Amino acid sequence: MKLPRAVQNLIEKFEKLPGVGPKSAQRLVFYLLHNPDHELEDFAQKLLLLKKNTFLCDICHNVSETNPCSVCDDPTRDENILCVVEHPLDVLALERSNSYKGKYHVLHGSIAPLNNIGPDQLFLHDISKRFNGVKELIIATNPTMEGEATALYITEYLTQQKGFDVENIIISRIGHGLPIGADIEYADGVTLSRALEGRRKI
Amino acid sequence: MKLPRAVQNLIEKFEKLPGVGPKSAQRLVFYLLHNPDHELEDFAQKLLLLKKNTFLCDICHNVSETNPCSVCDDPTRDENILCVVEHPLDVLALERSNSYKGKYHVLHGSIAPLNNIGPDQLFLHDISKRFNGVKELIIATNPTMEGEATALYITEYLTQQKGFDVENIIISRIGHGLPIGADIEYADGVTLSRALEGRRKI
Repeated sequence: MKLPRAVQNLIEKFEKLPGVGPKSAQRLVFYLLHNPDHELEDFAQKLLLLKKNTFLCDICHNVSETNPCSVCDDPTRDENILCVVEHPLDVLALERSNSYKGKYHVLHGSIAPLNNIGPDQLFLHDISKRFNGVKELIIATNPTMEGEATALYITEYLTQQKGFDVENIIISRIGHGLPIGADIEYADGVTLSRALEGRRKI
Repeated sequence: MKLPRAVQNLIEKFEKLPGVGPKSAQRLVFYLLHNPDHELEDFAQKLLLLKKNTFLCDICHNVSETNPCSVCDDPTRDENILCVVEHPLDVLALERSNSYKGKYHVLHGSIAPLNNIGPDQLFLHDISKRFNGVKELIIATNPTMEGEATALYITEYLTQQKGFDVENIIISRIGHGLPIGADIEYADGVTLSRALEGRRKI
């Protein structure tokens, strides 16, 4: 016995999503089978509108409803600080922390040679176009191998650019160490060594 | 900063799916944002076709491309045995085992008073219409509280029906015990007690 073609087709679509295995895909599709027709139509409609009604901001490349996005367009935000992140969701997380009032630059990934992603596949080289008046560049890529490599590449690339003002622009890396609420006992060695390196006078 | 409306809408749709939390829904939608337009159109199309191109078989209530379904319509399958399961995926699992050649009856759920699901919300009472020539009824609902309650209800309901031939129709419950490959050491008490009850002479 085979599954109906329409069911199998949708299972294959769900299987392609990250973190959804064949079993979860089956469960999701059979769940949807019990949904009323108008729910499925609504779901389909929202899939179609996803890319039609969103833009990548030409300045920071964040996903937005407008172009330029609301952050780039906001005169109250500090134009002197630029925070470089990997993904749009990283912007959301930083905004949620309510502790950053500068502007962003979204790379849309990190340098990962194993996945054939080099600097040219990212919105990386145009950071250098955004240096008008910028005093600090915070590199907030993830503390993973790819994120660290990307941070290193950005630093080297920018300092080699003509017109890069080494004396007046600070390039910094977001702080690494123990997350709040963590237990030193269970922290891994690399995190602890980074936490010691990043210690601050109290 | 807020997420674009189109992104938020789709996240809400994904959040409604079973086992998909707010974080996974976000990740899925941002993954889809990097998909080409035709992929999203294809996904939407397949959602729309899901219910249009599938039917519930009028006889066994399994999800199918045809009505009656391929199992009910197959003259080589044994009409004398009927296996009652909770979900269409259970049929698939039993078919995969290649050890059952009878027909099925899909309840589409189990009796769960806490979720307001009683016998009337299931395809349960019409099992009695399928007794023409049936010699055995295997109740293969899940070995959970709801599944056991459903099995008990079916047994009591059917034996009270007029025309139910107690002497010639066997009602059986699928075997419970240790799954193949399991370790007695780690088996829970209920499973072990069921395994002892269900012991067979070798």
